[in-house]
Amino acid sequence: MTDTPERSLFASPLHVINVGADLFADALVTQGAQVTRVAWQPAPGNTDAALSVLLDDQRVDQANHEAAQRMIAARPRLVDVRPAGQVIPGMHKHLLLHAGPPITWERVSGPLRGAIIGALLYEGLAPDIAAAEQLAASGDIAFEPCHQHNAVGPMAGLISASMPVLVIEEPVYGHQTFSTLNEGLGKVLRYGANSPDVLAKLRWLEQVLGPAMAHAVRATGGIEVKPMTAQALQMGDELHNRNKAATSLFFREIAPYVVETGSSTEETASVLRYIHGNDFFYLNLSMAACKAVTLAGHGIAFSSVVTTMARNGTDFGIRVSGLGDRWYVGPSQKVKGLYFSGYTEEDANPDIGDSTISETAGIGAFAMATAPAIVQFIGGTVADALQYTLEMYDITVAVDSQYQLPSLNFRGTPLGIDIRQVVRQNLLPIINTGIAHRLPGIGQVGAGIVRPPMECFVAAVRDLAKSVQSAT
Amino acid sequence: MTDTPERSLFASPLHVINVGADLFADALVTQGAQVTRVAWQPAPGNTDAALSVLLDDQRVDQANHEAAQRMIAARPRLVDVRPAGQVIPGMHKHLLLHAGPPITWERVSGPLRGAIIGALLYEGLAPDIAAAEQLAASGDIAFEPCHQHNAVGPMAGLISASMPVLVIEEPVYGHQTFSTLNEGLGKVLRYGANSPDVLAKLRWLEQVLGPAMAHAVRATGGIEVKPMTAQALQMGDELHNRNKAATSLFFREIAPYVVETGSSTEETASVLRYIHGNDFFYLNLSMAACKAVTLAGHGIAFSSVVTTMARNGTDFGIRVSGLGDRWYVGPSQKVKGLYFSGYTEEDANPDIGDSTISETAGIGAFAMATAPAIVQFIGGTVADALQYTLEMYDITVAVDSQYQLPSLNFRGTPLGIDIRQVVRQNLLPIINTGIAHRLPGIGQVGAGIVRPPMECFVAAVRDLAKSVQSAT
Repeated sequence: MTDTPERSLFASPLHVINVGADLFADALVTQGAQVTRVAWQPAPGNTDAALSVLLDDQRVDQANHEAAQRMIAARPRLVDVRPAGQVIPGMHKHLLLHAGPPITWERVSGPLRGAIIGALLYEGLAPDIAAAEQLAASGDIAFEPCHQHNAVGPMAGLISASMPVLVIEEPVYGHQTFSTLNEGLGKVLRYGANSPDVLAKLRWLEQVLGPAMAHAVRATGGIEVKPMTAQALQMGDELHNRNKAATSLFFREIAPYVVETGSSTEETASVLRYIHGNDFFYLNLSMAACKAVTLAGHGIAFSSVVTTMARNGTDFGIRVSGLGDRWYVGPSQKVKGLYFSGYTEEDANPDIGDSTISETAGIGAFAMATAPAIVQFIGGTVADALQYTLEMYDITVAVDSQYQLPSLNFRGTPLGIDIRQVVRQNLLPIINTGIAHRLPGIGQVGAGIVRPPMECFVAAVRDLAKSVQSAT
Repeated sequence: MTDTPERSLFASPLHVINVGADLFADALVTQGAQVTRVAWQPAPGNTDAALSVLLDDQRVDQANHEAAQRMIAARPRLVDVRPAGQVIPGMHKHLLLHAGPPITWERVSGPLRGAIIGALLYEGLAPDIAAAEQLAASGDIAFEPCHQHNAVGPMAGLISASMPVLVIEEPVYGHQTFSTLNEGLGKVLRYGANSPDVLAKLRWLEQVLGPAMAHAVRATGGIEVKPMTAQALQMGDELHNRNKAATSLFFREIAPYVVETGSSTEETASVLRYIHGNDFFYLNLSMAACKAVTLAGHGIAFSSVVTTMARNGTDFGIRVSGLGDRWYVGPSQKVKGLYFSGYTEEDANPDIGDSTISETAGIGAFAMATAPAIVQFIGGTVADALQYTLEMYDITVAVDSQYQLPSLNFRGTPLGIDIRQVVRQNLLPIINTGIAHRLPGIGQVGAGIVRPPMECFVAAVRDLAKSVQSAT
């Protein structure tokens, strides 16, 4: 008998390398073989062929590089505060913008339902809750995602025509983006609360805060947002669930202008106290700026970079730079986190809000390494916070050195989520978020972390592969 | 011959443990012996006997516990801003307070000399620099340490009667402490600059900022300093060389009151812009609060805890809780750090200022682990910053859980420097500091880290041992 390779294989002790499922390794171990285990899973959703197309095509890498460079080059500036109806393209009295991908009234979650009712009452379109619900169901009110109007809103993300919005101008690529003024914590419209005090505060935002901010912001000549965000990232903010430093820096910048343009001492003091009293004031500004950044990276043919992640409380949707304006949608997930006193997971609505624009632009949970104090608000350990950021470098296409993280030796933030890597590594983006009560009219009940559903990324990978192949 | 232990010792191969000097270990290694080396040095300054007395006496540990508990219990509150001559005990027109231990005009360093001249010009006691120098040398002007009047001043630390000072009240132990208003960076009196623009700014502090702050601070009803410092420690400040977050938090707190008590829109805006323009504004407030804290721990019989560390640019002095008001002095050291463009080590004055009250109260360099961004200002690496804090736990008697460091899993700051441990471990406290030009009239040239001279601690250990023994 000749000494075949098969024969020599069995002549010496076996050392097996097992890739993936432990079943095979376990069987070998029981037979006395030495086994080295390599963690591996097949790509989710049977995407191996699509991934192979996308990972082999240099046009995708080039497009991703271009998308990232545009996001890095974008220079969002806060230039004004104006009523939404005057500045948001396509906005009108009977249109309500909301967070996340498109949704119909029948499918809206509790907090979004509460916010829609509140907005209709606030706009004077309905006299009471029952009438508002009837109107919402009548078809006379249009519902569209904020994102489809270059706007973003935290949680329910409700924007109606009379609400004052922050106006961001991005001069490099010529975009304007928008977000509401932050309402503070507790019982607020964005968490679905709509009681008279909530509406009274919205009117104060419209009649006092909005005009005061408008005068002050115009007097500054425009405020560059990225340098302020960069400073805050060196001061323990990750700019999604923690905005204390950024709010402080913005307060310092704007306060003298509020004084100089104020209509009275009382009003000026009340405006300053309002901003001082709300460590989340900067969040909406940051979100609108992130929207301008991601918009700059959107629409690059072949690019597999995510340019939108957003949730309406029912569905989670993403949009991808090279896939136009199509939404890829899956179910909103449960948030893992800390609950305010008196609330539990039972009370929680699934993940909701446009604030994931933060992670889409490389900050928020992607920058958690710089914000160890946040674990006292959302749970987990300081080591977890570090680990989350480190993992995100594996699924992103660039490092944004404008945003340096001191705790990582001034490494830049991980920027540009690559749907190929999310699927190939089965590693979902991490997101910091607030938790809304599942019933309308209540408000925030906690804060924590969440991940998107994998199916959005799987569907986008398949579509992008088709589009890349058809363009060969 | 019987089998003596000596004989059996040499019957098997030697394994030697060598403690201290490498000379012996090296000699053994050349003879083929295995040697384990243990780093050890005799206590500096022949203090072994004194240390043995102090380390064996439980009264010292009890006194240190008491001193630390008092520092932790102290609750400094900012209650007013007043001209030094009206509030600092013993202050008068012909008395100048300065940083560090006592010193005579003949021995003052350049920056302190520049500041003394500037203060005499500012007070109208001399018409020009030559006359000011003559007056300073005449004996008609008294020079005393700020610390001897419950005051502290950064760098030269000059306080004259007309200067507005922050008034801290500490209700638990009934102290009042003081510090000037921070002049900002660059050409300032505290770095020895005394040109007309420096004096003009001092007059603006006296005539505009001081009164405006006084009105605003009184209107607040008093501001608790520790909670604000605790927040800033979670926002990347160590509260000595980095005060950006703390200044921002203070600004937010005070701004509405400045608006409400301001005499005019222009003045209010100018006051807010001044504070906004100076990230070190909080330093002096923090220092005065640290003085109140350390004062609470001072005067505990037998305690080996340091309650003052201060430098006048020539000498470094410490005072110890159980050793009354006696200063233990050694030469001020060179600062290791980063220099502003155009300056080098040649330009630097030795270490100067009362700002080491920060480290004495457990913050500043002792909290550097929480302020990684600071290495871009003072040099070194992020790992160094972490290591400095970790080392300081070895020479302190308590952990102050009011001041939590997120990067160390919310461990409290190392509080209460123990002269016994400094000497026994030959491990000197670490200090963050600015660097003054060695010539009068110039100003700041950089920032870095420095340590005190060991002789202060050696002399204090000897004296405390004597005092403990004589009280047996």
